Amino acid sequence: MDLKEEIEQRAAVFNKELDDFLKRGNPGNLYDALRHLSMAGGKRLRPVLSMLVCEAVSGEYQQAMPFGLAVEIIHNFTLVHDDIMDKSSLRRGMTTVHIEYGEPTAIIAGDLLFAKAFEALGQYPEKIRSFRRLYTHLTQSVIEVCEGQQFDMNFEKRFIVRESEYLEMIKMKTSALFRISCEGGALIGGASEEVQKALREYGTCLGLAFQIRDDYLDMSSDSETLGKDIGNDIRNGKKTIIAVHSLTHATGEDRKILTDIFGKTTATAEDVNKVYKVFEHAGSIEYARKKAEEYSNLAKKSLDILDDSTAKEVLKALADYAMTREK
Amino acid sequence: MDLKEEIEQRAAVFNKELDDFLKRGNPGNLYDALRHLSMAGGKRLRPVLSMLVCEAVSGEYQQAMPFGLAVEIIHNFTLVHDDIMDKSSLRRGMTTVHIEYGEPTAIIAGDLLFAKAFEALGQYPEKIRSFRRLYTHLTQSVIEVCEGQQFDMNFEKRFIVRESEYLEMIKMKTSALFRISCEGGALIGGASEEVQKALREYGTCLGLAFQIRDDYLDMSSDSETLGKDIGNDIRNGKKTIIAVHSLTHATGEDRKILTDIFGKTTATAEDVNKVYKVFEHAGSIEYARKKAEEYSNLAKKSLDILDDSTAKEVLKALADYAMTREK
Repeated sequence: MDLKEEIEQRAAVFNKELDDFLKRGNPGNLYDALRHLSMAGGKRLRPVLSMLVCEAVSGEYQQAMPFGLAVEIIHNFTLVHDDIMDKSSLRRGMTTVHIEYGEPTAIIAGDLLFAKAFEALGQYPEKIRSFRRLYTHLTQSVIEVCEGQQFDMNFEKRFIVRESEYLEMIKMKTSALFRISCEGGALIGGASEEVQKALREYGTCLGLAFQIRDDYLDMSSDSETLGKDIGNDIRNGKKTIIAVHSLTHATGEDRKILTDIFGKTTATAEDVNKVYKVFEHAGSIEYARKKAEEYSNLAKKSLDILDDSTAKEVLKALADYAMTREK
Repeated sequence: MDLKEEIEQRAAVFNKELDDFLKRGNPGNLYDALRHLSMAGGKRLRPVLSMLVCEAVSGEYQQAMPFGLAVEIIHNFTLVHDDIMDKSSLRRGMTTVHIEYGEPTAIIAGDLLFAKAFEALGQYPEKIRSFRRLYTHLTQSVIEVCEGQQFDMNFEKRFIVRESEYLEMIKMKTSALFRISCEGGALIGGASEEVQKALREYGTCLGLAFQIRDDYLDMSSDSETLGKDIGNDIRNGKKTIIAVHSLTHATGEDRKILTDIFGKTTATAEDVNKVYKVFEHAGSIEYARKKAEEYSNLAKKSLDILDDSTAKEVLKALADYAMTREK
């Protein structure tokens, strides 16, 4: 089984549906802005998860499509607004929506995507029994993503953030959409409450593994080639799991370096490198690698409840990928 | 019947529900931002419309509450984001959310309000038959508000906008929420399709009357006291119904003044005054007053289908207020 191929095959089916759903409209510049990021690729992990889970429990993925559309569109709406907040100018190798269309149009495009997500969910026929629960999943996940995003910003202004707080934050900011992608896919596929719960757990742990591996990858490059983003994360006092671990565990001289430099907007490249060395010395980078592995294994274990199928194998391989990927 | 009293009485009932629904949460600063504008007053016209219409068709308003919450919260979300786009620093006599909490938190607070609107709608029990139509009303109205807002911004960059285009734009940007407030209230109250349609028309025309009267009031003050906002609207080339009328009807020297000054960001106070005189001379200010009256009368006529009731009288008085109010 070739993971890449299995994912891409489903993503291609999904992209066709998305392209069709996010068709051009009036005013033209608003719909161009709407499609700018949404149709620029991306792995489509969330809708593919819904499709895979639905397939694993029912043998077919078609039923998961409107929900997958809704989740992916929500994900894109949050990215458009996040890029404005972070003043990011690049995403998926392209200029961000607010750089291309101006901030006002980017704000509206994000809002419109949000509304379109609910329109996508409305494609389910009225008689479908699970509608109200899918609706609640979607609504609650957006609430969590918003709360998580604000926690993330607030954490930058605090020196010490407990690991449990960090985990709660990424459970909201990142895992919520992974979680409902899986839980929703199971619900639509007609799975029992027990199976839904197991797949909810799978989605949560997979999201955590992905996010923590992200933190790890950002920091694991050779210290000589530490990129601009890492420097900025250190200067902004960004609370990645690595920073959280170091700030709690570093002692003596190491701790002093963190106190002096971490979160200092004027830190030089040399300063940034010193912090990086502390992260390494405190074992924080290795800790992140292991933590992602831990959640990936928990995700895989949650799949035990499923009967064997290709979809199950792909879900398992995806959990492996979450902890081993190099980019 | 005292219109003010009738409205305020229902608004007070509504405010209690809203205060309860938008309770504080974590992170605290996000929920403070969420409540900042939402709990700062405002006439609550939209939910009061839902309550009145529901009352007019069924004798009681209680059923309209979750829908009224959803509509009012949507309205507030659009205001929070609009204020960011317009760089406005004051609203309802208070600093705007982005000035008070920063732009990133204001963007998230708007998004969270949007999600909360759908959470409010989710308060209806699962067995309610009209849920899916209320859901569609809400989703479609947000899509229209977004499109209308972008049209409004695009119109500023065009010299000529047809009146029909202007009317389509405010039907989306302003009337959509008035429309669904009424249509939704009728639906929840168990009204026939015919009555729902009449109240949909009432809401649309009422919204148009309110918006056009707004355009009129902004411009009808003594030319000596022309405020900063009017000057800015003229400098930005804002297409109010008055501007649209003048740009189509002014001739000769008047037209030249518009061509030279309207939409010129560097226009002086004297320039602005010249444009104002053209608006007066072309009959555009009086035209706006009459147009609001026209829509108000259409709104009232739509109410003929209802049996007599206090609620019906209040709805009628509200239409009168829309065209006579002085602020």
